[in-house]
Amino acid sequence: MKFLIALKDKIILILSGGMDSFTLLHHAINQNYQVECLTFDYGQRHIKEIECAISACNDNNLSNLQIKIANVESIFAESALTSNHIEMPHGSYQEESMQATIVPNRNMLFISHAIAYAISKNIKRVWYGAHAGDHFIYPDCRPEFLSAMNSVAQKCHTFPINIEAPFLNFSKAEILKLGLELGLDYSKTWTCYEGKDLACGKCGSCNERLEAFTLNNFIDPLQYSEKN
Amino acid sequence: MKFLIALKDKIILILSGGMDSFTLLHHAINQNYQVECLTFDYGQRHIKEIECAISACNDNNLSNLQIKIANVESIFAESALTSNHIEMPHGSYQEESMQATIVPNRNMLFISHAIAYAISKNIKRVWYGAHAGDHFIYPDCRPEFLSAMNSVAQKCHTFPINIEAPFLNFSKAEILKLGLELGLDYSKTWTCYEGKDLACGKCGSCNERLEAFTLNNFIDPLQYSEKN
Repeated sequence: MKFLIALKDKIILILSGGMDSFTLLHHAINQNYQVECLTFDYGQRHIKEIECAISACNDNNLSNLQIKIANVESIFAESALTSNHIEMPHGSYQEESMQATIVPNRNMLFISHAIAYAISKNIKRVWYGAHAGDHFIYPDCRPEFLSAMNSVAQKCHTFPINIEAPFLNFSKAEILKLGLELGLDYSKTWTCYEGKDLACGKCGSCNERLEAFTLNNFIDPLQYSEKN
Repeated sequence: MKFLIALKDKIILILSGGMDSFTLLHHAINQNYQVECLTFDYGQRHIKEIECAISACNDNNLSNLQIKIANVESIFAESALTSNHIEMPHGSYQEESMQATIVPNRNMLFISHAIAYAISKNIKRVWYGAHAGDHFIYPDCRPEFLSAMNSVAQKCHTFPINIEAPFLNFSKAEILKLGLELGLDYSKTWTCYEGKDLACGKCGSCNERLEAFTLNNFIDPLQYSEKN
């Protein structure tokens, strides 16, 4: 006997390959959304995350459109995430030094591409993985940014596009809790900002990830060069 | 005897090489703004406009950063401006058929890049050449789009960016009037949407340009293959 599953809307999902968007992808699939993924190469040191994004799409029989942002050496000149001459700060997201990890206007750039693609495919919804842990340091992950982004996305074309961040008020630990309930394998994600073979365990991003695993009493399956 | 000229703010100006942004550039220079130009290659058929943009910068001893939008065949799949398989509509901007000339979310994409670049250069203002003649057909040239874009540009980074369209309420004829008063040579601009050697004189863009010259009782110095 076969059961018919009622498929929900088509959505464009911005998939980095980090644990937040990886969880968001599986949450969307679990909720029966029809997902198309966009992954951005913006000159990030941690290019490994793109391999994880592609792999996550392959594992779910989804296509993945990779978009390469041009001129990153000019438009993202002052970010430690894209510029090797800027030292990657260690520690927690609450520290002033983490400002160096801001990639200017990254989310508006990603969402702008996603909206164009959505319009071309006649899709009305775009999802991205902003969450509460990002609010302190990254302006373009905050509720007020999302709200303003939605306002402009209602007016940029002949029909409105909705920008949604279902994890906007989730902590990283809560996202991980949801993913673990879904049985996800987080060895298939990449979080570290450094572009090395093993995750550093010391950058803001590694710190936040490791804390989320600790709070869930779960051992991170990823190998680290060292942990704080 | 030398006079000191008080230079105004630095601005990032989105320069297409068409007559509106060409006039805007010279208006900005005439007003003593310090201008940095961005020009976008988005797979437009009328790639000639980029040559005009570069030439306008050279003539004014300004640098020009060219940015190539990636994956245009996917994200702009349904626009006649980028897809040769879609017929370029002839006639006026008031006609329904002109919808085919919409490049989805083009201005948000351009402005997103410009904001990132502005942040990296610590510049607070971005100008683009939207004008009243665009309002009917292009949602991303309308006052409500600019207003919403400004709202998100106030929140996307640690300091606000202002998005300005000084010609927002100018007709094409009024822009041309200003440019003619500045003594500009409009043979150095490109307006036609078709990617041919000579301007077609029949597409919506040519029509609007020719009408602006007629209203100013001035002969367009550009050569056309034919005129309506």
